[in-house]
Amino acid sequence: MTSGDRPGYKAPSTGGTARVTGFTFRRQMTIEWGHCDPAGIVFNPRFFEFFDRNTWMLFDAALGVKPQELAATYGILGLPLVDARANFLKPAKFGDRIEIASRVSEFRRSSFDVEHIITLDGARAVEGGETRVWAGRSKDDPEKMSAVAIPPEVIAKFG
Amino acid sequence: MTSGDRPGYKAPSTGGTARVTGFTFRRQMTIEWGHCDPAGIVFNPRFFEFFDRNTWMLFDAALGVKPQELAATYGILGLPLVDARANFLKPAKFGDRIEIASRVSEFRRSSFDVEHIITLDGARAVEGGETRVWAGRSKDDPEKMSAVAIPPEVIAKFG
Amino acid sequence: MTSGDRPGYKAPSTGGTARVTGFTFRRQMTIEWGHCDPAGIVFNPRFFEFFDRNTWMLFDAALGVKPQELAATYGILGLPLVDARANFLKPAKFGDRIEIASRVSEFRRSSFDVEHIITLDGARAVEGGETRVWAGRSKDDPEKMSAVAIPPEVIAKFG
Amino acid sequence: MTSGDRPGYKAPSTGGTARVTGFTFRRQMTIEWGHCDPAGIVFNPRFFEFFDRNTWMLFDAALGVKPQELAATYGILGLPLVDARANFLKPAKFGDRIEIASRVSEFRRSSFDVEHIITLDGARAVEGGETRVWAGRSKDDPEKMSAVAIPPEVIAKFG
Repeated sequence: MTSGDRPGYKAPSTGGTARVTGFTFRRQMTIEWGHCDPAGIVFNPRFFEFFDRNTWMLFDAALGVKPQELAATYGILGLPLVDARANFLKPAKFGDRIEIASRVSEFRRSSFDVEHIITLDGARAVEGGETRVWAGRSKDDPEKMSAVAIPPEVIAKFG
Repeated sequence: MTSGDRPGYKAPSTGGTARVTGFTFRRQMTIEWGHCDPAGIVFNPRFFEFFDRNTWMLFDAALGVKPQELAATYGILGLPLVDARANFLKPAKFGDRIEIASRVSEFRRSSFDVEHIITLDGARAVEGGETRVWAGRSKDDPEKMSAVAIPPEVIAKFG
Repeated sequence: MTSGDRPGYKAPSTGGTARVTGFTFRRQMTIEWGHCDPAGIVFNPRFFEFFDRNTWMLFDAALGVKPQELAATYGILGLPLVDARANFLKPAKFGDRIEIASRVSEFRRSSFDVEHIITLDGARAVEGGETRVWAGRSKDDPEKMSAVAIPPEVIAKFG
Repeated sequence: MTSGDRPGYKAPSTGGTARVTGFTFRRQMTIEWGHCDPAGIVFNPRFFEFFDRNTWMLFDAALGVKPQELAATYGILGLPLVDARANFLKPAKFGDRIEIASRVSEFRRSSFDVEHIITLDGARAVEGGETRVWAGRSKDDPEKMSAVAIPPEVIAKFG
């Protein structure tokens, strides 16, 4: 379910700190009855559930750290989402077998973008994206979260 | 949305400590597109979401304590669910206007039953029930939850 | 993920038409971040989603018919749920690996019971149950559903 | 809960057919226990559920047509989503009271954009957007959906 393919990909010109990664996590899953709406197709919020799960699994695959141990392992509070988006190209329905391929498309100093591509019967069904922050305790106020620098060894493991 | 009606109700013979209450909380809501499945009717797990919300609102109505302040107000950890059940008598579909009437049908020393009746067009659509525990920190191990006695003043407010 | 084990099971005395089956479908899954609530444990309606999916997969495993083809294959409208219930014995949290074992515990003329046992770290975490109807078009009113007799060859495949 | 305010808004230059509307639908709601994740804040897919519901309610408020009657009233199949997006500016947690203000930010020939602004304690918490299609039966293949022109009287009702 995991592969390290590095497609021909051109880095966006976002300055010297951005790192484009190629490590891709792929998951196959089947659309469930409860994922679908009265039109018989996946209700859109479900895709954002699929994306969230794939991001956790992508980090597990790249770092070898279980999702529930990620925060403690790196001394952070979590990877809060600041932006989510999706284009719906082709509907998926009950029983359809989809693949969700996810990778970090860009690492910045303390945030990163995850790209999720859902494929159905060989065609793109959904293109999704998330922007997340590597968040630790604020130095000024330990009760608050703040963005902290992503360790280079984390970025390195995404290739 | 709240009323204190006390229907003619016969207490189950569960011993001297059981208290049957009559305080009923009623909420009207409309079935959403996203609540429904490909058959065009509410997907059953959604009813358990509706029940959970109604239990929080029932306690708010009876005790005058906001859900997010309930644990701190009474020095407990929460009201964990130990049993949930529902009979589905009549389907509810997109746009249907339902009423959910909820009450504590029995208080015991440290647990209680909540009864949820969903009505649609004047007829019963779903009969649900929950059994929950009044849970605090264990005396033996403060890391663990254990059932603690429900304060008499809490029970009294349910009439 | 599927096995045909037949545990030592005593049939309830519900008359000559009831058939107890032993065919059990087992699925392993991991608890996701989005399944859990602020207490860090699975929000109860999610278990009913897991049960619904397992019932579809149980029928697939026993009959060799994909869920999305079940209705057409047997000339029915579906398997509507008339009752659902669960006991929560032990909480499951983010990252926990659970097994859901499901079987038809009893077939009656036109309805049946499904039993779902969720195991975590070798112990029972949740005991669930569903009662469903084998539903076709009503003879009197083709717009309506009514319970129809379950074909003997269906029951036979559950052992 | 509904108002027809028209904020000072500058139309994007997308050609002569685009119509910017000012009709805004506002809904207040309370964040539920089941909307939140182990971090104690709303799990992001829930926001897309809130948006979906608000779009239905916005059309109901503007057109005076119940959601479940919208398709039949206008002879369409539905308003399928082709794009969804959200920026998360400030977390919302259990018990928080939010307002979701929704309006069609642009009508094009057969598609439109809905803007959703979620406010919490007077500050923006989430900025969301949807792009949807006014979809009818394809002339070439009645089994398929295709985008059809949005009736001018529909657009007119959004001001």
